[in-house]
Amino acid sequence: MRCEVVAIGTELLLGQIVDSNSAWIGEQLALSGIDSFHQVKVGDNHRRIVDSLKLALSRSEAVICCGGLGPTQDDITREAIAEVMGVALVRDAAMGERIRQMFESRGRTMPENNLRQAKLPAGARFIAEMPGTAPGLVCPIGQQVIYAVPGVPSEMRAMMRGTILPDLRTRSGETSIIRSRVLRTWGQSESGLAEMLAPHMAGLDESGRATLAFQASGIEGIKVRITVKAPDEATAKTLLEAEDRVVAGILGKYVFGRDQQTMESVVLEGLRQRGLTLALAESATGGHIGLRLSARDEAEGVFLGGLILADGRLQTRLLGVKESDFPNPETTAALAEAVRAHTGADIGLSTCAVDDRKEVPGVRPGTVFIGIATAAGANTERVQLPGDDRARIREYAVISALNALRQRVLA
Amino acid sequence: MRCEVVAIGTELLLGQIVDSNSAWIGEQLALSGIDSFHQVKVGDNHRRIVDSLKLALSRSEAVICCGGLGPTQDDITREAIAEVMGVALVRDAAMGERIRQMFESRGRTMPENNLRQAKLPAGARFIAEMPGTAPGLVCPIGQQVIYAVPGVPSEMRAMMRGTILPDLRTRSGETSIIRSRVLRTWGQSESGLAEMLAPHMAGLDESGRATLAFQASGIEGIKVRITVKAPDEATAKTLLEAEDRVVAGILGKYVFGRDQQTMESVVLEGLRQRGLTLALAESATGGHIGLRLSARDEAEGVFLGGLILADGRLQTRLLGVKESDFPNPETTAALAEAVRAHTGADIGLSTCAVDDRKEVPGVRPGTVFIGIATAAGANTERVQLPGDDRARIREYAVISALNALRQRVLA
Repeated sequence: MRCEVVAIGTELLLGQIVDSNSAWIGEQLALSGIDSFHQVKVGDNHRRIVDSLKLALSRSEAVICCGGLGPTQDDITREAIAEVMGVALVRDAAMGERIRQMFESRGRTMPENNLRQAKLPAGARFIAEMPGTAPGLVCPIGQQVIYAVPGVPSEMRAMMRGTILPDLRTRSGETSIIRSRVLRTWGQSESGLAEMLAPHMAGLDESGRATLAFQASGIEGIKVRITVKAPDEATAKTLLEAEDRVVAGILGKYVFGRDQQTMESVVLEGLRQRGLTLALAESATGGHIGLRLSARDEAEGVFLGGLILADGRLQTRLLGVKESDFPNPETTAALAEAVRAHTGADIGLSTCAVDDRKEVPGVRPGTVFIGIATAAGANTERVQLPGDDRARIREYAVISALNALRQRVLA
Repeated sequence: MRCEVVAIGTELLLGQIVDSNSAWIGEQLALSGIDSFHQVKVGDNHRRIVDSLKLALSRSEAVICCGGLGPTQDDITREAIAEVMGVALVRDAAMGERIRQMFESRGRTMPENNLRQAKLPAGARFIAEMPGTAPGLVCPIGQQVIYAVPGVPSEMRAMMRGTILPDLRTRSGETSIIRSRVLRTWGQSESGLAEMLAPHMAGLDESGRATLAFQASGIEGIKVRITVKAPDEATAKTLLEAEDRVVAGILGKYVFGRDQQTMESVVLEGLRQRGLTLALAESATGGHIGLRLSARDEAEGVFLGGLILADGRLQTRLLGVKESDFPNPETTAALAEAVRAHTGADIGLSTCAVDDRKEVPGVRPGTVFIGIATAAGANTERVQLPGDDRARIREYAVISALNALRQRVLA
């Protein structure tokens, strides 16, 4: 089974947007055991879209078109597919009504243009998932098929997962299944993890019972993906769990979670289990830790909130902590203690950092101080991060602070 | 003059790497006035690379191959180009020696494999720029040409700038240049903007003096890109500025900035010019506004910081604002006023929202209250956002709050 990807949009050719959708789709196809030998980008030009689709259908059984489903005149994917199918576009009254209601529910009037989105080639059907106002399409052509999805990544992904990948697997007659699990790690480099796992991976290569892949994900740490192929779900689960135990055993403290777990979900869940509440004093991180924690459902009743200390004067005014000439361990611990006292939280967490804007004697840029205050007292950890990029220092400070909290309070 | 891009590498199709090279090349071609109507990705397969190159040469005068020039057995771009040219690969002794010396100058011995990189199709020449160990190629085929560059972005860019773009411009006889400018907008949908601009765009289509394109960018708003073609920089600038005035005049308050400006840079710059300081009370947005503001250099001395109010108890404890049963305009205004008073800032900005976790009589999920307190008093604006996705409500609340501040204080 072969499936090509046709990304549609002049902005892609002009480099105004990087086409990351095709890469994601390619990865999902590979995980489903479907070959993808060609991926192309083409602009908003009817003739060239039609030619690209015909070429793709001459080489592959299925084609996924991404983009060009919007409401404006340069969104012409629908028209191009209709020409390739040799049919007319028809308007679907129910879809028109649905789009109109989506606008109304947001208190807005639907521009008439949006009714273009309620059209589809005769013989095609809409994709059930529809997170935005652009419906996706399944367009059968004999034994072949063209799918059309919007270029908005979240909408595209929902349609891929809910409709297209299952449909492709049914068409391909693939019966074995591929399943994977991700171990989330923090605190060790990709090559460091690879060295730790090298002897085990040599054995895996021989037996073929699973594969391991590393994915460096910046502030999300390094993901270790375990993939197995099995005749059924139960066997896949058994294989995954056995492999998980071995790999997690080798990597030890670096593993903080699995799959959808994040550093903050793990921290919040751990605090909840222990009946602890948390408050923040964010100097280095400017609200970023608060943002990540409060975005999670697990935050309710556990994360109380805290202070963003962008300007040094605020820590004195709101917390009574004297302003210091430069970030240091003592002030960081005092901030954690003060925010704990002022908010009544069980734990206070604070961040201060030295970046390249101000020279601090004896401290390198990229040094982050993390203060943790509990009923047992307050202290400060120090981590050294890549020093020359302020945005990166901040991002790494966020996850380092949460990791420090995890290792201190939840160990 | 048309030029296609063929990105070579199985890892691109599998989504292990996102092909950002093609986007960059596409942008450079556009800026040089060279059309690029197709960009394709193909794996490390001889037959399919050859077919892709032949197809590209059937549609365009020039082709840029990116990737597959390394020293290993799966780097087969050289062989594929030789087949398309109908010539043999020959080894260049001087290049072999140059690569050997590059290794020696780094204190390493050249693996014999690397001599593969000293080969080129008969009739081709090496590209002068060579920042790594992989030489690039210029391969003439009659009046057409195939260029080959490595996939390493820095090496590819040096060869593009130094050799390929100048060569293409000479071949095309193109003397005009293309320049563009982006107007940043917030508060109107893509189709709404398109409707506002429709009469003007019809006139542009006729005159051809500029083109307009829309780019929906989620929380970053919708970008309106103006592009002009001109014989020289001065004329391009004049054309851009004239078009900017017309488009900005039509779109009015929806335009908040241009090119690299962001909503927060515009707000911070405006506050600085007026000598005003700002503090936040973030309930709905959990630190997200603080994060965005404090990430900017312009924040210094303008943005003081503020409070993250995740749990309702904190607003009473830290700001003395009585907890209410549910988010409402009065409490939101009181929070803005209180954070202004407690921090000593000139302006207090607060956010409260109703999401789908708690039913509030008479208020739909997705309703966000934005409180703004100044020396003149406090009041609350209300915006209705897409209601069913909490993460989206938050993100839209952030930019809506900053936009409200922009319109209120900086107008």
